[in-house]
Formats: sequence, C-alpha cells, structure tokens
Amino acid sequence: MSRRSGRRPGNPDTRQAIMTSARHAFAERGYDGASIRAIATDAGVDPALVHHYFGTKEQLFLQTLQMPVNPHEFLPHVIEGDQDEIGVRLVATFLSIWDTPVGTTTVALLRSAMSADWTIQLVREFLTTQVLRPLLAQVEIDPAEVPLRASLIASQMAGLTVIRYIFKLEPLATAPPETIVAAVAPTIQRYVTGPLR
Amino acid sequence: MSRRSGRRPGNPDTRQAIMTSARHAFAERGYDGASIRAIATDAGVDPALVHHYFGTKEQLFLQTLQMPVNPHEFLPHVIEGDQDEIGVRLVATFLSIWDTPVGTTTVALLRSAMSADWTIQLVREFLTTQVLRPLLAQVEIDPAEVPLRASLIASQMAGLTVIRYIFKLEPLATAPPETIVAAVAPTIQRYVTGPLR
Repeated sequence: MSRRSGRRPGNPDTRQAIMTSARHAFAERGYDGASIRAIATDAGVDPALVHHYFGTKEQLFLQTLQMPVNPHEFLPHVIEGDQDEIGVRLVATFLSIWDTPVGTTTVALLRSAMSADWTIQLVREFLTTQVLRPLLAQVEIDPAEVPLRASLIASQMAGLTVIRYIFKLEPLATAPPETIVAAVAPTIQRYVTGPLR
Repeated sequence: MSRRSGRRPGNPDTRQAIMTSARHAFAERGYDGASIRAIATDAGVDPALVHHYFGTKEQLFLQTLQMPVNPHEFLPHVIEGDQDEIGVRLVATFLSIWDTPVGTTTVALLRSAMSADWTIQLVREFLTTQVLRPLLAQVEIDPAEVPLRASLIASQMAGLTVIRYIFKLEPLATAPPETIVAAVAPTIQRYVTGPLR
C-alpha cells in the first residue's frame, strides 16, 4: 500500500533494495559465490527484475562498486601483444586511466573504501575477478602460480596508486608516465612472467 | 586561574595543546619546516616545556603519529651489511615488524590515517624523513636519484601493506615471510641500487 513497498519498474526504493542486497552478497560471499537469485530473494523481488534493472551479474557487480572504469574496455589493450611487454602495457594503461578526471573519482572511491571492511571486500573481489584473473588467464604461466602472481601485481599497483594519488609523494606524484613506466614495468613484468624465487 | 589554563608540568590540557599544535605544524609545514619554537608559541607555552614533555623534535614527531615502531631501532639492521642484499633485509625487517601485534596496531593507524589529508601528510613526512631518507643516505647512489628511488620503494612497501594486511588478498595475506622476501626483495633492490630506465 505504501509508496516505499512498491515493485513498479524503475521504483527507486526497489532499485536501492536490490543494490543493498547485492553489496552484502558480493562482500560476504564473493563475486563467484553471490547469485542473482539470492540477491533477488533478499531484496524481495523477482530475479528477472534484477536483470531488468542492472543487466548481468557482472554488470550488477560493477554498479555496486560505482566503478567508473570498465575493465572490459582496457584489459584487451594490456593483454594483446608481446607477452614480454605486458608490464609496460599494464603500467601505461593504468596511468592513462588514473591520470584523468574519471581516475581521480575512482581513486577517491578507493580511498573511502579503505575505511570499511565490506567495501574492501568488494574492491578485492573486483580486482581479483574482473582484472587480475582475466589478465593472467591470457598469459602462458603455471596456473598454480597465478594467485601469488596476481597478489604481487596488486601490491605494486595498489602501492603506486597510494603513493602517487593519495600520499602524493614526490617525485612519483607528478612524474611523467614514461618515467614511471620505465621504473615500474620491470617489476610488473617479473610478477607476471618472471621468476618469483 | 582555571584548571584548564595551567602550565604546570604534566598538565594533561597543556600536553594536549602542544600535541595539537605539533600535529598541525608537522602536517602543514612538514617535518623540516616545523620548529619547536613555533609549536610552543602556537600552544601558548615555553619551548623548554615542549622539550620537557616530549624530548627532541624527532621524538615529538614520532609521538604525534602515535607510531609504536621506532625507525631508529630497525633501520640499522637494514643498512648494515652487503648493499646488494638491502632489498632482502628491508622486506624481511618490514615483515618481522608488521607480522606482530605492534604491527597490527600500526597498520590500523595507517588505515585510519588514509581518511584525512592532514594525517596522510604526517605519515608521508614520517616515511620520507624518518625511514627513506636515512636509509638511502647510507647507499652509494646518485643523490639526484634519491627522491625517485625513495618514492618507488614507498610504492612497493605501501602496496605490500595494503594487500597483505588491509585487503588480505590471498596468498599474499598468509604467505610465509620467506615467500614474500623472495618475490619482493628483487623489486626493492632494483629501486635502491638498480637501473630505473
């Protein structure tokens, strides 16, 4: 009866309920463990309505993060080409995204995400399932080493983000991309294809 | 006349006033730019009282950060010895501190520091003046390269902190120190003494 309990398409309360359920599900059960069906049940709506509002599970996940950058747009640029240059392409692509107004928004989101465990879990799921796993799936390496390589790559890229964009430690804060690519790409390249011990 | 305006040694209000002035000074003017005299003036006390309560400027700075780890205790272990092994010693020492209850406290402090610009400035000053600058002063490298090397080292160590202790991305979150040292020390070693381009 009340305005707040409606299920009409486009009802902002319903959208919000789905979004809240989705954030909980992805944070608690991870990207792989969360299901549209369970999210819909928790929000008290039909699964079809979740798809109608938010598209696929992956699209819903990206929307829960309010991530203005879509990995499907930049990952092909990193993956395609010589595997010995993947470090150069990853760092260069990363900087080309981060050094923009959209990147500034994303960094602000990441920074505020650091304050709560559930947002940290969302970002971790995003990094793992949307960026690192698809990236390393295209590289000829021992699959058993993928998780360690992924978390090492994450450590250098997260640290670059923290020091350049949040701590603004000079000269890394204002260094031109080519300086950073030259210095950091060999690190990423070793974490992707090089020896780890 | 009132209890709050007293300047008696040990007066907690006076201590707090000095601490507040010190945090502002170090955040706004940096470690080098801040002076005990200016901090004392701002707090309305005699400089001698600042020294009496907090010791040297360096000791006051460490207390404003509530940093439970003193770089003067661990830096000698990193600096002394073969310069080609400085990466191994830095990563191993770092983990030996972080993987303790005191380290957990420090990580929690760093995490909450991320939320405010002035605490970020304090941590940046701490890293630069208390850890990175004294460390690199002992290494035979081109002084002009020191700032870039320092910020690159900071990027990998900050990222390791974020991924292992805050994001808890596996396997880096629970990997034994020797695995992390083997994988990350070559990165740090190159940032300290290796080619950057």
